[in-house]
Amino acid sequence: MILRVKALDISSGTHLVAVLNEHDAKRMDIHFSDRVHLCNGNKHASAIIDITSEKTKKDHHIINRGEIGLFEEVLKQLNAKDGDQIHVDLEGAPMSIQYIKKKLDGKTLSRKEIETIVQDITDDRLSEAEMTYFVAASYIHELNDDEIVALTNAMIKIGDRLKLRNQIVVDKHSIGGIAGNRTTLVVVPIIAAAGLICPKTSSRAITSAAGTADTMEVLANVGFSIKEMKEIIKKTNACIIWGGAVNLAPADDKIIKVEHPLAIDPTGQLLASILAKKGSVSSTHILVDIPIGREAKIEEPAKARSLAKKFRTIGKRLGMHIEVMITDGSQPIGKGIGPALEAKDVLFTLLNDRRGSELLRIKSLKMAGRIFEMVKKSKRGKGIELAEHILESGLAYKKFVEIIKAQGGKITKPEQIKYAKESQKIYAHKSGTIVHISNKNINRLANIAGAPVDKNAGVRLYIHKGYKVKKGEPLLTLYSDSKKRLEFALRSYRKQDGIIIK
Amino acid sequence: MILRVKALDISSGTHLVAVLNEHDAKRMDIHFSDRVHLCNGNKHASAIIDITSEKTKKDHHIINRGEIGLFEEVLKQLNAKDGDQIHVDLEGAPMSIQYIKKKLDGKTLSRKEIETIVQDITDDRLSEAEMTYFVAASYIHELNDDEIVALTNAMIKIGDRLKLRNQIVVDKHSIGGIAGNRTTLVVVPIIAAAGLICPKTSSRAITSAAGTADTMEVLANVGFSIKEMKEIIKKTNACIIWGGAVNLAPADDKIIKVEHPLAIDPTGQLLASILAKKGSVSSTHILVDIPIGREAKIEEPAKARSLAKKFRTIGKRLGMHIEVMITDGSQPIGKGIGPALEAKDVLFTLLNDRRGSELLRIKSLKMAGRIFEMVKKSKRGKGIELAEHILESGLAYKKFVEIIKAQGGKITKPEQIKYAKESQKIYAHKSGTIVHISNKNINRLANIAGAPVDKNAGVRLYIHKGYKVKKGEPLLTLYSDSKKRLEFALRSYRKQDGIIIK
Repeated sequence: MILRVKALDISSGTHLVAVLNEHDAKRMDIHFSDRVHLCNGNKHASAIIDITSEKTKKDHHIINRGEIGLFEEVLKQLNAKDGDQIHVDLEGAPMSIQYIKKKLDGKTLSRKEIETIVQDITDDRLSEAEMTYFVAASYIHELNDDEIVALTNAMIKIGDRLKLRNQIVVDKHSIGGIAGNRTTLVVVPIIAAAGLICPKTSSRAITSAAGTADTMEVLANVGFSIKEMKEIIKKTNACIIWGGAVNLAPADDKIIKVEHPLAIDPTGQLLASILAKKGSVSSTHILVDIPIGREAKIEEPAKARSLAKKFRTIGKRLGMHIEVMITDGSQPIGKGIGPALEAKDVLFTLLNDRRGSELLRIKSLKMAGRIFEMVKKSKRGKGIELAEHILESGLAYKKFVEIIKAQGGKITKPEQIKYAKESQKIYAHKSGTIVHISNKNINRLANIAGAPVDKNAGVRLYIHKGYKVKKGEPLLTLYSDSKKRLEFALRSYRKQDGIIIK
Repeated sequence: MILRVKALDISSGTHLVAVLNEHDAKRMDIHFSDRVHLCNGNKHASAIIDITSEKTKKDHHIINRGEIGLFEEVLKQLNAKDGDQIHVDLEGAPMSIQYIKKKLDGKTLSRKEIETIVQDITDDRLSEAEMTYFVAASYIHELNDDEIVALTNAMIKIGDRLKLRNQIVVDKHSIGGIAGNRTTLVVVPIIAAAGLICPKTSSRAITSAAGTADTMEVLANVGFSIKEMKEIIKKTNACIIWGGAVNLAPADDKIIKVEHPLAIDPTGQLLASILAKKGSVSSTHILVDIPIGREAKIEEPAKARSLAKKFRTIGKRLGMHIEVMITDGSQPIGKGIGPALEAKDVLFTLLNDRRGSELLRIKSLKMAGRIFEMVKKSKRGKGIELAEHILESGLAYKKFVEIIKAQGGKITKPEQIKYAKESQKIYAHKSGTIVHISNKNINRLANIAGAPVDKNAGVRLYIHKGYKVKKGEPLLTLYSDSKKRLEFALRSYRKQDGIIIK
């Protein structure tokens, strides 16, 4: 059938969409979410059909008979414009649909089938509903080890890769949700200073006040190509960049998008997501940090242990040496929350300045030490001593400065980092011991103050759990560029039990 | 936050959509598929967020910072236009999301929870992905009887209803997929002629060459309001109208839409969908026809029996008397396939003209007879005699003419129905017995010829299974308004084994 293009000023952001008038759809025996093959001269595209209903048509006359509405991505791919005449033909559904149906029916998918699904997701051939069926099926009928391995390998294969020839490439990953958990920025300099290779990619904030990439961006650039990434690692042994700028395991980001509405994260997808990003940069030795506690992503120790076991098993199957640390996630780790405040905290900690965070220091030393033991730089139980030596001698700080400079940064001293212009201290309303600091509420507080968009906004904590305070002593300072935001944040703080004194 | 409206010339057809620039979304801590509350003066709306990615933004500048793109449905509800300043606030997800998550986790939903989901679906408060999770969860963790009853009742409650005071209101339903299965148009006149009340609503073709509503439309109008429906029934005891024109169980159509991509139809949803439409028009006695056979919706007798049992159980719980007939679905029932050809077939059958379809006649008599027995108009085993008497005496035809006239129709004689102008006979390529007639291929043939959009297009069969034919005898005539379509249909027929002679 030949139809007239109606250019729609809208983008789906993901899959290719074309809109038909109900009448034409019926005539072509095409239904909602069917595929069509579109052809404009020598340009071709495959799009998923939406149909304007009779009712909508009557009221708005959006797509008339004989027209086909094309979203921006489709126009671009077809090099088509308003009024062009294009060929439209019904096309079969991709094979993935059958495999997703198979998984929905509780059957196990083969390596080949999973690869096809990942390829179709990567190429935007699946609609949101179809990907949702895949996630729902994997959530209920948990992926088995073979399937997780296949999913991870497919994600690695279908995407760009950083190929390194080193026999040992180390990496770390912390499961999210803990405020100020910026261990990467302390651990990576320590291990890189010891000569280990660490191609670290990090995320930006999703639901927190700052991601590692947001914090690193206060000090240096974080958006690099894979080629540039390789250069930085060649110079300094490591990098700390934003994963979103490189096209590693692209299917993963699309899967995460459909997990959001129900906030589900099937174990298989969680493992594949983390390990595909690591595999894409040739990592061989990976330390995974699972913080547990109230409001952490994993609350129960038993669940953390079972996840840890799964990480090790799947890692072995993928040829990766994975170790897991189950850590205390019951309170913020750093004392700064928000990109600039966290960067300051990290620099103080690397400079062995007591204005740094004690918890961040200890946790980072433990993690670096464990990595040294994993790669046999230290004997079991002795890694932490080597890490301590590197930190205290200033070698870690020196390495961090190298990395910052290799990434085009100029800020290397805590004093160079400014706080947001408006601030307000919050004081203890009574004397006693700090028994609870809520990750969720402190994160939310920094969010309202403007973090992560306003880099200098956020929270500076003066306390950790167990500290004794007197009535009227400061608990935290809140920073914001906007007086209105500051007031709003304060009001929100008063409504919550963010910090409990007993 | 106050944002400037950018009117988007597009409609989602279902839920309300608003599009934010990635930067503003981040600043408001709003993610893909979150909800926002929109306020324009005293007009309010709740919309689901889509976000334009940085990449899309760079290339196309669709939604700029400070702007919010609104789909047509939202503009209408807010009475807003391009450039208006509106208030935008984050809003919590509807409770349904939690209940859907609960079902996904394999738990049973309460009546109240299911009602909330149906209400939110009806009010377009759930996105496509969220409804998909509900269907996927109900597919894997099958709804139990309590849940199916609750779903059916909620669908009936939330939608318009035809309230009838009669103690006995009869109805019939055939599970689809069988070509020319137009029993409704023969059964309803027979039972209405016997004085029974039958408020029949039917669908248009979904994947076949004609739905009952398409066929009835050849003879009379089929789009009526509930009030008009009541008038027609008052005059004639029955009606045969299109269900889509009345707002019965509106949630059902939306659920069916997300079932389409994977072509799944969870048993619970199937039962609730059928019975909610019946309950909405006060039906008390329902005969369900489950055709089985190769290519039928249900292929296995055991599966048909288990579905039949479920129908009876759920019916009892809903206060409906349901009986089920498991019938032969291995070949087309009528000899006409396509709206006009089927209508002709029906009229011949009602007129006891031997040009009608023998199978359609026998099946309709059995069904009408069974209904007479259900409502105790006849003794068990004697219903078919009464049905036969009503058909053969011409009373059924007379009643059908009454119904056609009450629905504003004028065509009451087979001769008034014209065939499409182009036609081509297909002949037996050898002598032998007809052992197979494929529902799927014959339907597809009529589709290609132009049905159901071109009412006069389709197939006229001269044979049923078991007929003996000689080489060169006609098997069917293909009708189409377009020579091109006719040729294309013929080419397609030659590629298939639509009719097998042995």
